[in-house]
Amino acid sequence: MYELAINLQTKSKTPLYEQIYNYIKREIQDGHIKSGERLPSTRALSRHLEVSRSTVELAYEQLLSEGYVEAVPCRGYFASQIDELYQLEKPAIPESESETESFQKYDYDFTPNGVDLNSFPYNVWRKLSRECLTDDRAELFRLGNPQGEYGLRNAISSYLHQARGVNCRPEQVIVGAGGEYLLMLLVTVIGNGHRIALENPTYRQAYRLFENLSCQVCTVDMDKSGMRVDRLQGSGADIAFVMPSHQYPLGIVMPIRRRMELLKWADEKEGRYIIEDDYDSEFRYKGKPIPALQGYDSKGKVIYTGTFSKSVAPAIRVGYMVLPESVLEAYRRKCSFLNSTVSRVDQLILQKFIEDGYYERHLNKTRALYRNRHDVLLSCLKEMHGNFRISGENAGVHLLLRFGQGVSEEMLVGSAAENGVKVYGLSGYYVKEEGRKEGQGAVILLGYANMGEEKIEKACRLLRKAWEKYL
Amino acid sequence: MYELAINLQTKSKTPLYEQIYNYIKREIQDGHIKSGERLPSTRALSRHLEVSRSTVELAYEQLLSEGYVEAVPCRGYFASQIDELYQLEKPAIPESESETESFQKYDYDFTPNGVDLNSFPYNVWRKLSRECLTDDRAELFRLGNPQGEYGLRNAISSYLHQARGVNCRPEQVIVGAGGEYLLMLLVTVIGNGHRIALENPTYRQAYRLFENLSCQVCTVDMDKSGMRVDRLQGSGADIAFVMPSHQYPLGIVMPIRRRMELLKWADEKEGRYIIEDDYDSEFRYKGKPIPALQGYDSKGKVIYTGTFSKSVAPAIRVGYMVLPESVLEAYRRKCSFLNSTVSRVDQLILQKFIEDGYYERHLNKTRALYRNRHDVLLSCLKEMHGNFRISGENAGVHLLLRFGQGVSEEMLVGSAAENGVKVYGLSGYYVKEEGRKEGQGAVILLGYANMGEEKIEKACRLLRKAWEKYL
Repeated sequence: MYELAINLQTKSKTPLYEQIYNYIKREIQDGHIKSGERLPSTRALSRHLEVSRSTVELAYEQLLSEGYVEAVPCRGYFASQIDELYQLEKPAIPESESETESFQKYDYDFTPNGVDLNSFPYNVWRKLSRECLTDDRAELFRLGNPQGEYGLRNAISSYLHQARGVNCRPEQVIVGAGGEYLLMLLVTVIGNGHRIALENPTYRQAYRLFENLSCQVCTVDMDKSGMRVDRLQGSGADIAFVMPSHQYPLGIVMPIRRRMELLKWADEKEGRYIIEDDYDSEFRYKGKPIPALQGYDSKGKVIYTGTFSKSVAPAIRVGYMVLPESVLEAYRRKCSFLNSTVSRVDQLILQKFIEDGYYERHLNKTRALYRNRHDVLLSCLKEMHGNFRISGENAGVHLLLRFGQGVSEEMLVGSAAENGVKVYGLSGYYVKEEGRKEGQGAVILLGYANMGEEKIEKACRLLRKAWEKYL
Repeated sequence: MYELAINLQTKSKTPLYEQIYNYIKREIQDGHIKSGERLPSTRALSRHLEVSRSTVELAYEQLLSEGYVEAVPCRGYFASQIDELYQLEKPAIPESESETESFQKYDYDFTPNGVDLNSFPYNVWRKLSRECLTDDRAELFRLGNPQGEYGLRNAISSYLHQARGVNCRPEQVIVGAGGEYLLMLLVTVIGNGHRIALENPTYRQAYRLFENLSCQVCTVDMDKSGMRVDRLQGSGADIAFVMPSHQYPLGIVMPIRRRMELLKWADEKEGRYIIEDDYDSEFRYKGKPIPALQGYDSKGKVIYTGTFSKSVAPAIRVGYMVLPESVLEAYRRKCSFLNSTVSRVDQLILQKFIEDGYYERHLNKTRALYRNRHDVLLSCLKEMHGNFRISGENAGVHLLLRFGQGVSEEMLVGSAAENGVKVYGLSGYYVKEEGRKEGQGAVILLGYANMGEEKIEKACRLLRKAWEKYL
């Protein structure tokens, strides 16, 4: 039997039982106590160490629960056999590149992904969040409906019906933590044995995500009406991912005829679907909003998705998906055990925000704000009398400048940068360069959501200077 | 040219331009205006209808943007060709079954998934949420770090190191909206070309999720130390999903030797990993907490996951994953463009909750609470002197009763139900019946987190009565 030479520190903060446990554990780890070797009985060790028997028992129990020793009835405690011991050591993990990356500082940034956060109704949000945490408290911290709470789904479906012409019931709505999560969930529901066609250029994150989810992905050429259905036919795809209200990044509004062609395509074969990403349809500055494609679909072919990222704030992380019956049935069969990814408190705040009319008011306010910025930007650009055509205006929060021959995107982006203005070249939005046509002129994207009117004017003056020789 | 017989309602709430737009749209949809047919000029129509020309222009522009008409320069407006029209009609969506399902009412429910929400620190949570929304407001609504905010990741990694022996830096931590989402993300990172081995019985949701994500899944038999590594070797799996601290549902604590065998298995081949689900390790009522498997791993083979669902509340929807270097590298390459699924406000509340010591206090409080319930339940069960053995006790929030031969789970569950007590049979936790051994006695799970001591005593009296003939 092994002799334990433990030097107990009675004045230490570490309890005596833990000192004994630590000592024996280390002796076993280091191989000083061999596997199969018998340990002293609790009675013998307590006498030897002059501690109570229960102290030793506690130490032995801990060793037992972690598996360092084994108890054999009527025989005592034996060191377990441990083949190999892995040491605790800090593996070297490189710092995240994004956290160390150096970046150029711009005075003005025409990012197409901006949102004006100054207009965010902080006081209302705070008030609602206080209210939500006051009443009906315990319930809110219990798991809720996997699809999202009925109240919120009801508020969303009413809003979508009224504002977007979406034809749905709350039962069809799935609430989730952002658009990307909802696409992941969708692929989990429909499986990844699909071939998904996206426009080119497109929302590249969706392309990459589908690709990473092991779906087959392809791109389909566009004309001025959006995705070409004749090319879609030839692509072998069974799912088309489109943004009919305001294509990203080209800003194309898909006309009714193309919409009907798309719906017809989907209806021609069992299992075909259209994913409609209605990402920024809240913003339209001319006439009535253009209804969602989903509203024209009577055959259950459109999977509609949207988020509150542009219309409320990117960081609230709430999106929704409206599933047609066949997909809903698959969701219920395969994924309804997956808990909702949005906390119930956040769901309730948002529900009240919509139901109490704050959402509509906020939308009206930001729509007016963005309209003014849109108008100022348009008039500044027109004053330039440049060698470019403007497109994608009247909706969303960005527009495009299409330059004539003889000037490259790199030159335009580069000379703007030299003057402290960040603008975005269209080439960055192409999936591989396959969709880019030879000899096509440079195209620049300008987003205006995150820039005040005065800033837009100043930035345009700088652009005029920067681009003097190209205009 | 088509003659428009519009009956304008000057007193209607619908603007005149919209009435014109609606009328023409319907005429085109119904085929009364044929495709290619020319519409009256804006001047002619405005004179005909006795409205201003801009009213007609507005209507035409809306028709143009939606694609119902086309403008041909110098010639006028023509109805577009629309092949087929889909009518807006409500598809019949069946009510969700869970929403209409009838259910039996129980007086006592020994659910293994309960959490005591009465002890949730509502006041603190409300205070922190108020504080978070007050200071540094705008920033919180901007998109944050895709992995989760550094502050929260730092708080989590310190906690994990100190409380669970997890060996990690904040750079390795990914915060996400719940454990299931994190598994979806993980599969997106590592791809679904893996074969994943789970214990049987196991946390079935994980099995189903992997299956739905098109991974190959299999089960591996257990012995009293947990997953059998010899069987794992033969399974062809390259990923093992285990719960070493307190296996769900069997409550097995994996001894150190088995842990080492598992780590050795993972190290034997490139690309092998262990997913450690540390789902309820906060609760241990005897001795020190047993460190996580991850802490013994020096080869970067363990992917550690956990959530705040049991330790704070299920509905806050925050979990975390600690990635070893090779997986972290794949995450950065493939998925770092995916935005975080937890709102920044919620992240900040949780960060403060941990940093200000509330989390530790809350854990101590609930641990004491659950320990009392655990002790009361154990002593009630021992008093029964039943034909069963207790296992899985001392940790987590549920334990198991293993009955001898001659009594079936159905009988035990059924007679408990007749007395208003809901208990859970182990068979529901098996993936297919493949792992169930013939002739194995009935096993009942009793969860106690959501039941006060008095309720436990009363429920046990009822169980004693219900099971009289089986004990």
